[in-house]
Amino acid sequence: MFNFEFYNPTKIVFGTDTIAKLDQLVPADARVLILLGGESARKNGTLAEVRAALGAREVHEFNGIEPNPSYETLMGAVELIRKEKLDYLLAVGGGSVIDGTKFVAAAVPFDGEPWDILITHGRNVKAAMPFGTVLTLPATGSEMNEGSVITRKATHSKLAFMSAHVFPQFSILDPTKTLTLPTRQIANGVVDAYVHTIEQYLTYPANGMVQDRFAEGLLLSLIEIGPKVLANPNDYDLRANLMWVATQALNGLIGAGVPQDWSTHMLGHELTALYDIDHARTLAIVLPASLNVRREGKRAKLLQYAERVWNITEGTDDARIDAAIAKTAAFFEAMGIQTRLSDYDLATEAVDAVVNQLEKHGMTQLGEGQDVDLNVSRQILTAAL
Amino acid sequence: MFNFEFYNPTKIVFGTDTIAKLDQLVPADARVLILLGGESARKNGTLAEVRAALGAREVHEFNGIEPNPSYETLMGAVELIRKEKLDYLLAVGGGSVIDGTKFVAAAVPFDGEPWDILITHGRNVKAAMPFGTVLTLPATGSEMNEGSVITRKATHSKLAFMSAHVFPQFSILDPTKTLTLPTRQIANGVVDAYVHTIEQYLTYPANGMVQDRFAEGLLLSLIEIGPKVLANPNDYDLRANLMWVATQALNGLIGAGVPQDWSTHMLGHELTALYDIDHARTLAIVLPASLNVRREGKRAKLLQYAERVWNITEGTDDARIDAAIAKTAAFFEAMGIQTRLSDYDLATEAVDAVVNQLEKHGMTQLGEGQDVDLNVSRQILTAAL
Repeated sequence: MFNFEFYNPTKIVFGTDTIAKLDQLVPADARVLILLGGESARKNGTLAEVRAALGAREVHEFNGIEPNPSYETLMGAVELIRKEKLDYLLAVGGGSVIDGTKFVAAAVPFDGEPWDILITHGRNVKAAMPFGTVLTLPATGSEMNEGSVITRKATHSKLAFMSAHVFPQFSILDPTKTLTLPTRQIANGVVDAYVHTIEQYLTYPANGMVQDRFAEGLLLSLIEIGPKVLANPNDYDLRANLMWVATQALNGLIGAGVPQDWSTHMLGHELTALYDIDHARTLAIVLPASLNVRREGKRAKLLQYAERVWNITEGTDDARIDAAIAKTAAFFEAMGIQTRLSDYDLATEAVDAVVNQLEKHGMTQLGEGQDVDLNVSRQILTAAL
Repeated sequence: MFNFEFYNPTKIVFGTDTIAKLDQLVPADARVLILLGGESARKNGTLAEVRAALGAREVHEFNGIEPNPSYETLMGAVELIRKEKLDYLLAVGGGSVIDGTKFVAAAVPFDGEPWDILITHGRNVKAAMPFGTVLTLPATGSEMNEGSVITRKATHSKLAFMSAHVFPQFSILDPTKTLTLPTRQIANGVVDAYVHTIEQYLTYPANGMVQDRFAEGLLLSLIEIGPKVLANPNDYDLRANLMWVATQALNGLIGAGVPQDWSTHMLGHELTALYDIDHARTLAIVLPASLNVRREGKRAKLLQYAERVWNITEGTDDARIDAAIAKTAAFFEAMGIQTRLSDYDLATEAVDAVVNQLEKHGMTQLGEGQDVDLNVSRQILTAAL
């Protein structure tokens, strides 16, 4: 096991009828800005519930944080907060709203041009406004971590930052708030959490027993939840388990002390930026191809994955690896998510375009061994055609 | 899944050569009290390493916190801190030293008689001194939780308290510091962590998929680590994994949102108090008998435990349950820990004595269903003869 530090002070308030606890969680004299995405929180009553819980506090709203939240949009919130002298943020939404809120929290007290926060990946963040979240979409884990991904539309840049200052103070996870989500978003959430887990697990052996067993437990849970949650859209326990799995998949725990990959995400980000394919769908395209192309470096963990997650114990090593990769792709397909570039009407030109973007963004040494260079990325994308 | 709150702000600093990080973790102007158990930290050089890392800070020492740390001893530390106006505590040791430090941290600013902290199980704790820990013995999980068990010798009372004010600010977990531990303490640590996990897992189904999978992952890890760590006392990775498993077994994560038992601990506490048997050994005596006696209430989870942890899939339900209980006891025995009262020269008089103590301490409705009354406790103890 590698040396590591693990720190996660976010308080999780989980279950039905928990939004009312906002009254205890937000300071009584707070001047609050609620940050929102689209109109769903307003339409389904969640926003009204939040406002009721906040009682007599002064509350402002900032609407319209988009998927892949943008610097351009978020700077509007920064301006509003400074003008109205607000002192507490409350994100109500999914990963994009929470990621956006983290940027706003760091940008308001930031000395200088806030885009520098992204340029330095958060190293220059010295403080942030306090904030909490009300999660409505299980997928990204942003509700219990210190990471955020922000897009600058003007330059087509999508960059990440991390800072211990932007852990949410609390996150309310009420699974009933996910019952109104479209099937597509639930399917995306399952696949997103699955690939988050894989990025921290399917690398090379580092003898992290807890990390491996916990990661395998999340994958087994997602495999169990996935088809059921599509077939039973009103089942509370399935939504609750999906929500808690997605949080645990990216709160720092399973990745502490072990190698991490994340190259599937880097290739996926370029596909989203170029072709506007949902984030989770890009991961479903890249992952099976990546595992196939990179099977030598990942051989030992691929065999462990085959046995412990898919119960594949018969056949040669390569046959078991093939079967595990096929099962993985079939699981995504069963979630209604297609796994080939051609399914999204993309062909070899797209391979060239993504490789060009990777080169432009300096993504030339990706993966746990930094051996995913442009040539390997090209092989992966070609295998995904 | 039940509604739950999860909050754990302790920063973990894990790995080799991490004690030097104390210089960044402890405030530069802190007036520090180091709290210690026996002489091992002084003899094996850990204390010198700690003092070197603390540099020019004013440092006092308080020695002699015993296993099952006592109010009587700890009040000496409270007096010293008040007299010397110290403002930061550093526990260097195992669960007893850390539990004791938590009590001291809460007692110093406490308004009134500090024993009331135990009487109210921590509900009246409004503040505590800041403290960190350097863990030298993997077992109790105290390094990453808000619980503490304190004994008052004068009244033969052993009581627990919990308070969010007594989470350690940080805990340094350097597995190399456990390499000098006696075999007996390593074996005890494995069994202690195993039973901590079982108390939060082997109850009745509550559909907590993450909690179940994580608990099973910890149990599988301990089953793998246990015999190996005895046979390979110098293996770093085994010590590292044992340390991280023991922390995860009792940091609130696997028990959040699911039923918990803890009756094995309550019966075990009485055996320790009456006969001075090591805590972990009392758990090894009580658990197999308890699972046997209470198999109806625990049937569904016992079958899940048999299959997922011990890979027992053949035979009738009761045969599989019998086999799982036998495997559990055999695992403890393989760790050199005997599992019957008669192994400790105790007979039916001990059953009467423990039942009397349970009655005296109000322990008449134990377990996840509060159905472990004195009669059931008697059956369990009789089955353990």
